[in-house]
Amino acid sequence: MPSSDRVRDHAGQGATTVAAHRARRRLRADQARQLADLLRHQLLASGFPDGTLPHETTLAADYRATRNTVREALDLLRAEGLVERLPGVGTVVVAEKYPHGLDRLMGLAETLREHGRVTNEVRTMGPASAPAPVAERLHVPPGSDVLYIERLRRLDGLPLSLDLTYIPLDIGTALLGADLENTDVFRLLEAITGRPLGHAEITLEAVNADTHSAAVLEAPRGAAVLMLERLTHLDDGRPVDLEFIRFRGDRITMSGLLHRSL
Amino acid sequence: MPSSDRVRDHAGQGATTVAAHRARRRLRADQARQLADLLRHQLLASGFPDGTLPHETTLAADYRATRNTVREALDLLRAEGLVERLPGVGTVVVAEKYPHGLDRLMGLAETLREHGRVTNEVRTMGPASAPAPVAERLHVPPGSDVLYIERLRRLDGLPLSLDLTYIPLDIGTALLGADLENTDVFRLLEAITGRPLGHAEITLEAVNADTHSAAVLEAPRGAAVLMLERLTHLDDGRPVDLEFIRFRGDRITMSGLLHRSL
Repeated sequence: MPSSDRVRDHAGQGATTVAAHRARRRLRADQARQLADLLRHQLLASGFPDGTLPHETTLAADYRATRNTVREALDLLRAEGLVERLPGVGTVVVAEKYPHGLDRLMGLAETLREHGRVTNEVRTMGPASAPAPVAERLHVPPGSDVLYIERLRRLDGLPLSLDLTYIPLDIGTALLGADLENTDVFRLLEAITGRPLGHAEITLEAVNADTHSAAVLEAPRGAAVLMLERLTHLDDGRPVDLEFIRFRGDRITMSGLLHRSL
Repeated sequence: MPSSDRVRDHAGQGATTVAAHRARRRLRADQARQLADLLRHQLLASGFPDGTLPHETTLAADYRATRNTVREALDLLRAEGLVERLPGVGTVVVAEKYPHGLDRLMGLAETLREHGRVTNEVRTMGPASAPAPVAERLHVPPGSDVLYIERLRRLDGLPLSLDLTYIPLDIGTALLGADLENTDVFRLLEAITGRPLGHAEITLEAVNADTHSAAVLEAPRGAAVLMLERLTHLDDGRPVDLEFIRFRGDRITMSGLLHRSL
């Protein structure tokens, strides 16, 4: 056999080994993700009541996975800030995600009532000239003033969301003296107008937080943020509240029920 | 004045200048975010039909913002991969986000029919022993086999989502010979069982993609992912499909309508 063939042959074997090695790594990564998703569900559903996950060997047996797969799955959950490994204790749940309903239009304090106290740090508040897209959606003349509010919202002191809010000024002026620190805007809108809210169009996205938003939310740079855009109407159909809300991805889940037929 | 006082005084002025500088920077960052959110809405609503944003000076006039704020806002949208600056052309829209309805239970191909063709790369498919939490939710005996499917879903060739699916084996076996590459699982479930789907419990989260998921989705490491967990039932209430879906955050939005009273 000429030496060049031997070399090629050798390279071929090397390639096979590399391919097999890659396939094994890919398989383990896939299995780790699969296991992490199941554990994530249990975490979020408070399925570990004492706050500690079972030992790796127990998890491996329960989920018919290898110890390596279990370790990788726990690494994924740790990277998301959901669990931590404590020496001598094991893997403990460190982050709680709070459920926000997708079935009914509710303010944050209403939604999270059982979970703690919502407080709002008003960062900016005052009349501002409405840019065309805001004016159009709030049904006010372009360039007329609207009330602009920027709030950092906390649950028991932990930053949850950064909310940018636009409200028509006839309703907004009454908000200027209200207790925005401790009250949902939804509740205040109903009190001011004397009407219940009706419906809201919402859009949800996952985005990486820009540096400044991350800093305000006390989250790592680039942290995943659940972005909610919401245009809320009174029960007579009038649009009264346009909001852009950045929820910390590690602190909020949105849950609801979908039906096949309407 | 003793020199130590002069020094203190001088330091105090420095601190004031730094504080004022910080306040200005914070204000501009806040205004940039505010503007970016408005432009994002227009982008997603195809409000720039020719795919080009107005010139910076026009945006500055329209939104009563400074050129610096406009530039920072465009930088935020560029960091998210929504726009790019082309020399001699201006700022162009480069990413389209596809709307996924939150109002009705639909498969991906059904939902995105107007936007393009959905194809599915089946990465893994076969019977697997159901871990306890899967068995419980699918109402099958723990440890019994379920069909496990892992699919990378694309719209016109672009990766959209990575889906992990568990289906009870009595229904799942009929799926083994089906055209999963080109057909939604929802449609196949209805064909196999001869019943319509009824409802689904869903949970949405924003998470940073782990390295491996990001690679599969061809997204940057740490990219924001919209994570959907969904348990779908037939119209008789039987749970038939448990899914964990990672949507690329830069390609999907979820939209719906919420009502104040149920």
